[in-house]
Amino acid sequence: MNFLEERIVKDGVVKEGNVLKVDSFLNHQMDINLFDEMGKEFAKRFKDKPINKILTIEASGIGIASVVALHFNNCPVVFAKKSQSINLDGEMYTAEVESFTHKRVNHVIVSKKFLGPEDKVLIIDDFLANGCALQGLIQIVQSSGATVEGIGIAVEKGFQSGGRMIRNLGYQLESLAIVDAMDAKTGQVTFREQ
Amino acid sequence: MNFLEERIVKDGVVKEGNVLKVDSFLNHQMDINLFDEMGKEFAKRFKDKPINKILTIEASGIGIASVVALHFNNCPVVFAKKSQSINLDGEMYTAEVESFTHKRVNHVIVSKKFLGPEDKVLIIDDFLANGCALQGLIQIVQSSGATVEGIGIAVEKGFQSGGRMIRNLGYQLESLAIVDAMDAKTGQVTFREQ
Repeated sequence: MNFLEERIVKDGVVKEGNVLKVDSFLNHQMDINLFDEMGKEFAKRFKDKPINKILTIEASGIGIASVVALHFNNCPVVFAKKSQSINLDGEMYTAEVESFTHKRVNHVIVSKKFLGPEDKVLIIDDFLANGCALQGLIQIVQSSGATVEGIGIAVEKGFQSGGRMIRNLGYQLESLAIVDAMDAKTGQVTFREQ
Repeated sequence: MNFLEERIVKDGVVKEGNVLKVDSFLNHQMDINLFDEMGKEFAKRFKDKPINKILTIEASGIGIASVVALHFNNCPVVFAKKSQSINLDGEMYTAEVESFTHKRVNHVIVSKKFLGPEDKVLIIDDFLANGCALQGLIQIVQSSGATVEGIGIAVEKGFQSGGRMIRNLGYQLESLAIVDAMDAKTGQVTFREQ
Protein backbone atom coordinates (compact mmCIF):
# COMPACT_ATOMS: atom_id res chain seq x y z
CA MET A 1 0.00 0.00 0.00
CA ASN A 2 1.20 3.53 -0.72
CA PHE A 3 0.91 6.47 1.67
CA LEU A 4 -2.58 7.47 0.52
CA GLU A 5 -3.98 3.95 0.63
CA GLU A 6 -2.58 3.57 4.14
CA ARG A 7 -4.23 6.81 5.17
CA ILE A 8 -7.58 5.74 3.71
CA VAL A 9 -7.39 2.47 5.66
CA LYS A 10 -6.52 4.40 8.82
CA ASP A 11 -8.90 7.37 8.62
CA GLY A 12 -11.39 6.74 5.82
CA VAL A 13 -14.92 5.65 6.67
CA VAL A 14 -17.04 3.46 4.40
CA LYS A 15 -20.73 4.30 4.35
CA GLU A 16 -23.71 2.59 2.74
CA GLY A 17 -24.22 3.49 -0.92
CA ASN A 18 -20.55 3.23 -1.88
CA VAL A 19 -19.68 6.43 -0.05
CA LEU A 20 -16.08 6.74 1.14
CA LYS A 21 -15.70 9.54 3.65
CA VAL A 22 -12.23 11.04 3.70
CA ASP A 23 -13.27 14.35 5.19
CA SER A 24 -10.79 14.21 8.06
CA PHE A 25 -7.79 14.59 5.73
CA LEU A 26 -8.87 15.27 2.14
CA ASN A 27 -12.00 17.29 1.53
CA HIS A 28 -13.16 19.12 4.64
CA GLN A 29 -10.18 19.06 6.97
CA MET A 30 -7.10 19.00 4.75
CA ASP A 31 -3.78 17.41 5.71
CA ILE A 32 -1.22 19.67 4.08
CA ASN A 33 1.64 17.20 4.66
CA LEU A 34 -0.36 14.54 2.83
CA PHE A 35 -1.02 16.96 -0.05
CA ASP A 36 2.71 17.63 -0.20
CA GLU A 37 3.38 13.87 -0.49
CA MET A 38 0.79 13.72 -3.26
CA GLY A 39 2.55 16.57 -5.05
CA LYS A 40 5.86 14.69 -4.89
CA GLU A 41 4.25 11.55 -6.28
CA PHE A 42 2.51 13.38 -9.14
CA ALA A 43 5.78 15.14 -9.98
CA LYS A 44 7.38 11.70 -10.32
CA ARG A 45 4.57 10.28 -12.44
CA PHE A 46 4.38 13.29 -14.78
CA LYS A 47 8.09 14.11 -14.83
CA ASP A 48 8.36 13.97 -18.64
CA LYS A 49 5.43 16.32 -19.23
CA PRO A 50 5.99 20.06 -19.90
CA ILE A 51 3.27 21.16 -17.46
CA ASN A 52 2.88 24.92 -17.01
CA LYS A 53 -0.63 25.18 -15.56
CA ILE A 54 -2.85 23.21 -13.20
CA LEU A 55 -6.61 23.12 -13.62
CA THR A 56 -8.98 21.97 -10.89
CA ILE A 57 -12.59 22.48 -9.87
CA GLU A 58 -14.09 24.05 -6.78
CA ALA A 59 -14.21 23.33 -3.97
CA SER A 60 -12.33 20.27 -2.79
CA GLY A 61 -9.83 20.16 -5.66
CA ILE A 62 -8.42 23.59 -4.83
CA GLY A 63 -6.36 22.77 -1.75
CA ILE A 64 -4.75 19.72 -3.32
CA ALA A 65 -4.01 21.56 -6.57
CA SER A 66 -2.46 24.52 -4.75
CA VAL A 67 0.00 22.36 -2.81
CA VAL A 68 0.67 20.08 -5.81
CA ALA A 69 1.64 23.19 -7.80
CA LEU A 70 4.65 23.64 -5.52
CA HIS A 71 6.05 20.49 -7.15
CA PHE A 72 5.47 21.84 -10.65
CA ASN A 73 7.61 24.98 -10.46
CA ASN A 74 4.88 26.88 -8.59
CA CYS A 75 2.87 27.07 -11.81
CA PRO A 76 -0.45 28.95 -11.73
CA VAL A 77 -3.56 27.05 -10.66
CA VAL A 78 -6.92 27.81 -12.26
CA PHE A 79 -10.03 26.54 -10.56
CA ALA A 80 -13.20 26.04 -12.57
CA LYS A 81 -16.29 27.52 -10.93
CA LYS A 82 -19.55 25.69 -10.60
CA SER A 83 -22.09 28.45 -11.10
CA GLN A 84 -22.23 31.81 -12.76
CA SER A 85 -21.09 34.60 -10.45
CA ILE A 86 -21.59 38.29 -11.06
CA ASN A 87 -17.82 38.69 -10.67
CA LEU A 88 -17.21 36.52 -13.72
CA ASP A 89 -17.65 38.81 -16.68
CA GLY A 90 -16.21 38.62 -20.17
CA GLU A 91 -16.06 35.47 -22.15
CA MET A 92 -15.82 32.06 -20.59
CA TYR A 93 -15.56 28.42 -21.46
CA THR A 94 -18.46 26.41 -20.07
CA ALA A 95 -19.37 22.76 -19.81
CA GLU A 96 -22.27 20.99 -18.16
CA VAL A 97 -21.47 18.41 -15.50
CA GLU A 98 -23.57 16.25 -13.26
CA SER A 99 -22.66 16.15 -9.57
CA PHE A 100 -22.85 12.72 -7.94
CA THR A 101 -22.73 14.21 -4.45
CA HIS A 102 -25.27 16.95 -4.91
CA LYS A 103 -27.45 15.17 -7.48
CA ARG A 104 -27.83 18.12 -9.81
CA VAL A 105 -26.42 19.56 -13.03
CA ASN A 106 -23.80 22.28 -12.67
CA HIS A 107 -22.27 24.58 -15.19
CA VAL A 108 -18.52 24.50 -14.98
CA ILE A 109 -16.95 27.77 -16.01
CA VAL A 110 -13.42 28.98 -16.73
CA SER A 111 -12.63 32.47 -17.95
CA LYS A 112 -11.10 32.51 -21.43
CA LYS A 113 -8.36 34.77 -20.06
CA PHE A 114 -6.79 31.92 -18.12
CA LEU A 115 -6.55 29.06 -20.63
CA GLY A 116 -5.11 29.23 -24.13
CA PRO A 117 -3.09 27.32 -26.75
CA GLU A 118 0.18 27.94 -24.87
CA ASP A 119 -1.02 26.04 -21.79
CA LYS A 120 0.17 22.50 -20.98
CA VAL A 121 -2.36 21.47 -18.39
CA LEU A 122 -2.32 19.02 -15.50
CA ILE A 123 -5.87 18.45 -14.26
CA ILE A 124 -6.10 17.72 -10.52
CA ASP A 125 -9.11 16.61 -8.49
CA ASP A 126 -9.83 14.81 -5.26
CA PHE A 127 -12.26 12.15 -6.52
CA LEU A 128 -13.01 10.35 -9.77
CA ALA A 129 -16.19 8.27 -9.97
CA ASN A 130 -18.35 8.48 -13.09
CA GLY A 131 -16.00 11.07 -14.55
CA CYS A 132 -18.56 13.75 -15.35
CA ALA A 133 -16.65 16.60 -13.71
CA LEU A 134 -13.43 15.46 -15.36
CA GLN A 135 -15.05 15.30 -18.79
CA GLY A 136 -16.24 18.86 -18.30
CA LEU A 137 -12.71 20.00 -17.46
CA ILE A 138 -11.21 18.14 -20.44
CA GLN A 139 -13.83 19.69 -22.71
CA ILE A 140 -12.91 23.15 -21.43
CA VAL A 141 -9.18 22.57 -21.98
CA GLN A 142 -9.86 21.42 -25.52
CA SER A 143 -12.12 24.39 -26.28
CA SER A 144 -9.28 26.69 -25.25
CA GLY A 145 -6.72 25.10 -27.56
CA ALA A 146 -4.62 24.08 -24.56
CA THR A 147 -3.28 20.53 -24.10
CA VAL A 148 -4.20 18.04 -21.39
CA GLU A 149 -0.77 16.69 -20.42
CA GLY A 150 -2.10 14.56 -17.62
CA ILE A 151 -4.73 14.01 -14.97
CA GLY A 152 -3.91 13.47 -11.31
CA ILE A 153 -6.59 12.16 -8.96
CA ALA A 154 -6.38 11.36 -5.26
CA VAL A 155 -9.07 8.67 -4.99
CA GLU A 156 -10.62 6.84 -7.93
CA LYS A 157 -13.67 4.65 -7.48
CA GLY A 158 -12.49 1.85 -9.75
CA PHE A 159 -15.88 0.16 -9.76
CA GLN A 160 -17.41 3.14 -11.55
CA SER A 161 -16.74 3.81 -15.21
CA GLY A 162 -15.02 7.20 -15.18
CA GLY A 163 -11.42 6.02 -14.98
CA ARG A 164 -11.72 3.35 -17.66
CA MET A 165 -13.41 5.75 -20.05
CA ILE A 166 -10.79 8.49 -19.60
CA ARG A 167 -7.91 6.01 -20.02
CA ASN A 168 -9.57 4.61 -23.14
CA LEU A 169 -9.48 8.11 -24.58
CA GLY A 170 -5.68 7.97 -24.29
CA TYR A 171 -5.10 10.34 -21.38
CA GLN A 172 -2.40 9.68 -18.79
CA LEU A 173 -4.64 9.37 -15.75
CA GLU A 174 -2.85 8.75 -12.46
CA SER A 175 -4.97 7.96 -9.42
CA LEU A 176 -3.01 7.61 -6.20
CA ALA A 177 -5.57 5.20 -4.77
CA ILE A 178 -7.99 3.13 -6.86
CA VAL A 179 -10.76 1.63 -4.76
CA ASP A 180 -12.08 -1.52 -6.41
CA ALA A 181 -14.50 -2.46 -3.67
CA MET A 182 -15.66 -1.35 -0.26
CA ASP A 183 -17.85 -2.90 2.35
CA ALA A 184 -19.88 -0.69 4.66
CA LYS A 185 -20.51 -3.58 7.09
CA THR A 186 -16.86 -4.46 7.72
CA GLY A 187 -15.39 -1.09 6.73
CA GLN A 188 -12.97 -2.89 4.44
CA VAL A 189 -11.56 -1.12 1.37
CA THR A 190 -9.98 -3.11 -1.47
CA PHE A 191 -7.42 -1.28 -3.61
CA ARG A 192 -6.37 -2.12 -7.14
CA GLU A 193 -2.73 -3.22 -7.47
CA GLN A 194 -0.82 -0.53 -9.38
CA MET B 1 3.34 49.70 -1.29
CA ASN B 2 3.83 46.07 -0.29
CA PHE B 3 3.94 43.12 -2.73
CA LEU B 4 0.18 42.56 -2.75
CA GLU B 5 -0.67 46.24 -3.21
CA GLU B 6 1.79 46.38 -6.10
CA ARG B 7 0.17 43.34 -7.67
CA ILE B 8 -3.30 44.84 -7.32
CA VAL B 9 -2.11 48.03 -9.05
CA LYS B 10 -0.52 45.95 -11.82
CA ASP B 11 -3.19 43.30 -12.43
CA GLY B 12 -6.36 44.27 -10.55
CA VAL B 13 -9.26 45.78 -12.45
CA VAL B 14 -11.71 48.25 -10.92
CA LYS B 15 -15.31 47.87 -12.07
CA GLU B 16 -18.39 49.95 -11.43
CA GLY B 17 -20.15 49.20 -8.14
CA ASN B 18 -16.96 49.03 -6.07
CA VAL B 19 -15.95 45.71 -7.58
CA LEU B 20 -12.23 44.96 -7.60
CA LYS B 21 -11.42 42.08 -9.91
CA VAL B 22 -8.33 40.15 -8.88
CA ASP B 23 -9.26 36.96 -10.68
CA SER B 24 -5.99 36.74 -12.62
CA PHE B 25 -3.97 36.06 -9.47
CA LEU B 26 -6.19 35.59 -6.41
CA ASN B 27 -9.58 33.97 -6.88
CA HIS B 28 -9.91 32.23 -10.23
CA GLN B 29 -6.38 31.87 -11.49
CA MET B 30 -4.16 31.61 -8.42
CA ASP B 31 -0.54 32.76 -8.23
CA ILE B 32 1.09 30.22 -5.92
CA ASN B 33 4.25 32.32 -5.53
CA LEU B 34 2.12 35.24 -4.36
CA PHE B 35 0.30 32.97 -1.88
CA ASP B 36 3.67 31.86 -0.59
CA GLU B 37 4.67 35.50 -0.03
CA MET B 38 1.38 36.03 1.78
CA GLY B 39 2.13 33.03 3.99
CA LYS B 40 5.53 34.48 4.91
CA GLU B 41 3.95 37.81 5.79
CA PHE B 42 1.18 36.27 7.92
CA ALA B 43 3.78 34.14 9.71
CA LYS B 44 5.60 37.37 10.60
CA ARG B 45 2.46 39.17 11.77
CA PHE B 46 1.17 36.25 13.85
CA LYS B 47 4.54 34.98 15.06
CA ASP B 48 3.59 35.16 18.75
CA LYS B 49 0.37 33.21 18.35
CA PRO B 50 0.23 29.46 19.07
CA ILE B 51 -1.69 28.63 15.89
CA ASN B 52 -2.37 24.93 15.27
CA LYS B 53 -5.25 25.07 12.78
CA ILE B 54 -6.35 27.25 9.88
CA LEU B 55 -10.01 27.82 9.09
CA THR B 56 -11.23 29.20 5.78
CA ILE B 57 -14.36 29.10 3.64
CA GLU B 58 -14.98 27.67 0.21
CA ALA B 59 -14.13 28.35 -2.47
CA SER B 60 -11.60 31.13 -2.95
CA GLY B 61 -10.15 31.00 0.56
CA ILE B 62 -9.00 27.40 0.17
CA GLY B 63 -5.98 27.91 -2.09
CA ILE B 64 -4.59 30.76 -0.02
CA ALA B 65 -5.15 28.92 3.26
CA SER B 66 -3.47 25.75 1.95
CA VAL B 67 -0.29 27.56 0.94
CA VAL B 68 -0.31 29.78 4.04
CA ALA B 69 -0.43 26.61 6.18
CA LEU B 70 3.07 25.77 4.95
CA HIS B 71 4.26 28.75 7.01
CA PHE B 72 2.44 27.54 10.12
CA ASN B 73 4.14 24.16 10.53
CA ASN B 74 1.92 22.58 7.87
CA CYS B 75 -1.00 22.69 10.29
CA PRO B 76 -4.33 21.23 9.13
CA VAL B 77 -6.70 23.49 7.18
CA VAL B 78 -10.45 23.18 7.61
CA PHE B 79 -12.68 24.77 5.03
CA ALA B 80 -16.24 25.70 5.93
CA LYS B 81 -18.79 24.59 3.38
CA LYS B 82 -21.53 26.79 2.07
CA SER B 83 -24.40 24.36 1.70
CA GLN B 84 -25.48 21.06 3.16
CA SER B 85 -24.02 18.10 1.27
CA ILE B 86 -25.11 14.50 1.64
CA ASN B 87 -21.49 13.69 2.44
CA LEU B 88 -21.63 15.84 5.57
CA ASP B 89 -23.28 13.67 8.19
CA GLY B 90 -23.02 13.74 11.95
CA GLU B 91 -23.09 16.89 13.95
CA MET B 92 -21.97 20.21 12.60
CA TYR B 93 -21.56 23.81 13.57
CA THR B 94 -23.59 26.14 11.39
CA ALA B 95 -23.93 29.88 10.91
CA GLU B 96 -25.92 31.95 8.46
CA VAL B 97 -24.00 34.35 6.25
CA GLU B 98 -24.99 36.71 3.50
CA SER B 99 -22.94 36.62 0.29
CA PHE B 100 -22.20 40.01 -1.22
CA THR B 101 -21.16 38.48 -4.54
CA HIS B 102 -24.03 36.07 -4.96
CA LYS B 103 -26.68 38.15 -3.18
CA ARG B 104 -28.11 35.30 -1.16
CA VAL B 105 -28.00 33.77 2.30
CA ASN B 106 -25.77 30.73 2.74
CA HIS B 107 -25.42 28.33 5.58
CA VAL B 108 -21.81 27.94 6.57
CA ILE B 109 -21.06 24.52 7.99
CA VAL B 110 -18.12 22.91 9.76
CA SER B 111 -18.17 19.37 11.09
CA LYS B 112 -17.85 19.20 14.88
CA LYS B 113 -15.11 16.60 14.39
CA PHE B 114 -12.67 19.20 13.11
CA LEU B 115 -12.90 22.05 15.62
CA GLY B 116 -12.67 21.79 19.40
CA PRO B 117 -11.37 23.48 22.57
CA GLU B 118 -7.77 22.45 21.80
CA ASP B 119 -7.69 24.42 18.53
CA LYS B 120 -5.88 27.76 18.22
CA VAL B 121 -7.32 29.04 14.99
CA LEU B 122 -6.06 31.40 12.31
CA ILE B 123 -8.94 32.37 10.02
CA ILE B 124 -7.88 33.05 6.42
CA ASP B 125 -9.95 34.48 3.56
CA ASP B 126 -9.37 36.30 0.30
CA PHE B 127 -11.74 39.26 0.78
CA LEU B 128 -13.25 41.20 3.65
CA ALA B 129 -16.04 43.66 2.89
CA ASN B 130 -19.09 43.77 5.16
CA GLY B 131 -17.65 40.95 7.22
CA CYS B 132 -20.64 38.60 7.13
CA ALA B 133 -18.67 35.52 6.13
CA LEU B 134 -16.04 36.29 8.72
CA GLN B 135 -18.62 36.72 11.48
CA GLY B 136 -20.02 33.32 10.56
CA LEU B 137 -16.58 31.74 10.86
CA ILE B 138 -15.89 33.46 14.19
CA GLN B 139 -19.26 32.29 15.50
CA ILE B 140 -18.42 28.72 14.50
CA VAL B 141 -15.00 28.84 16.21
CA GLN B 142 -16.62 30.15 19.37
CA SER B 143 -19.35 27.50 19.32
CA SER B 144 -16.64 24.85 19.20
CA GLY B 145 -14.76 26.16 22.22
CA ALA B 146 -11.71 26.85 20.07
CA THR B 147 -9.87 30.19 20.13
CA VAL B 148 -9.58 32.73 17.32
CA GLU B 149 -5.89 33.63 17.51
CA GLY B 150 -5.97 35.85 14.47
CA ILE B 151 -7.55 36.66 11.14
CA GLY B 152 -5.55 37.03 7.94
CA ILE B 153 -7.17 38.61 4.89
CA ALA B 154 -5.71 39.30 1.47
CA VAL B 155 -7.81 42.30 0.41
CA GLU B 156 -9.99 44.36 2.73
CA LYS B 157 -12.44 46.89 1.39
CA GLY B 158 -11.71 49.57 3.97
CA PHE B 159 -14.69 51.67 2.94
CA GLN B 160 -17.05 48.93 4.10
CA SER B 161 -17.68 48.26 7.77
CA GLY B 162 -16.46 44.67 8.23
CA GLY B 163 -12.86 45.41 9.19
CA ARG B 164 -13.68 48.15 11.69
CA MET B 165 -16.31 46.00 13.36
CA ILE B 166 -14.05 42.97 13.72
CA ARG B 167 -11.17 45.09 15.08
CA ASN B 168 -13.55 46.73 17.54
CA LEU B 169 -14.35 43.27 18.87
CA GLY B 170 -10.65 42.96 19.78
CA TYR B 171 -9.49 40.47 17.18
CA GLN B 172 -6.05 40.75 15.58
CA LEU B 173 -7.15 41.26 11.99
CA GLU B 174 -4.34 41.59 9.47
CA SER B 175 -5.28 42.58 5.93
CA LEU B 176 -2.37 42.62 3.50
CA ALA B 177 -4.03 45.30 1.38
CA ILE B 178 -6.72 47.68 2.62
CA VAL B 179 -8.47 49.48 -0.21
CA ASP B 180 -9.85 52.79 1.01
CA ALA B 181 -11.16 53.96 -2.34
CA MET B 182 -11.31 52.94 -5.96
CA ASP B 183 -12.35 54.72 -9.10
CA ALA B 184 -13.80 52.70 -11.97
CA LYS B 185 -13.27 55.60 -14.40
CA THR B 186 -9.54 56.02 -13.84
CA GLY B 187 -8.87 52.52 -12.52
CA GLN B 188 -7.10 54.04 -9.54
CA VAL B 189 -6.94 52.19 -6.22
CA THR B 190 -6.12 54.02 -2.98
CA PHE B 191 -4.62 51.93 -0.19
CA ARG B 192 -4.64 52.70 3.51
CA GLU B 193 -1.20 53.37 5.00
CA GLN B 194 -0.31 50.50 7.36
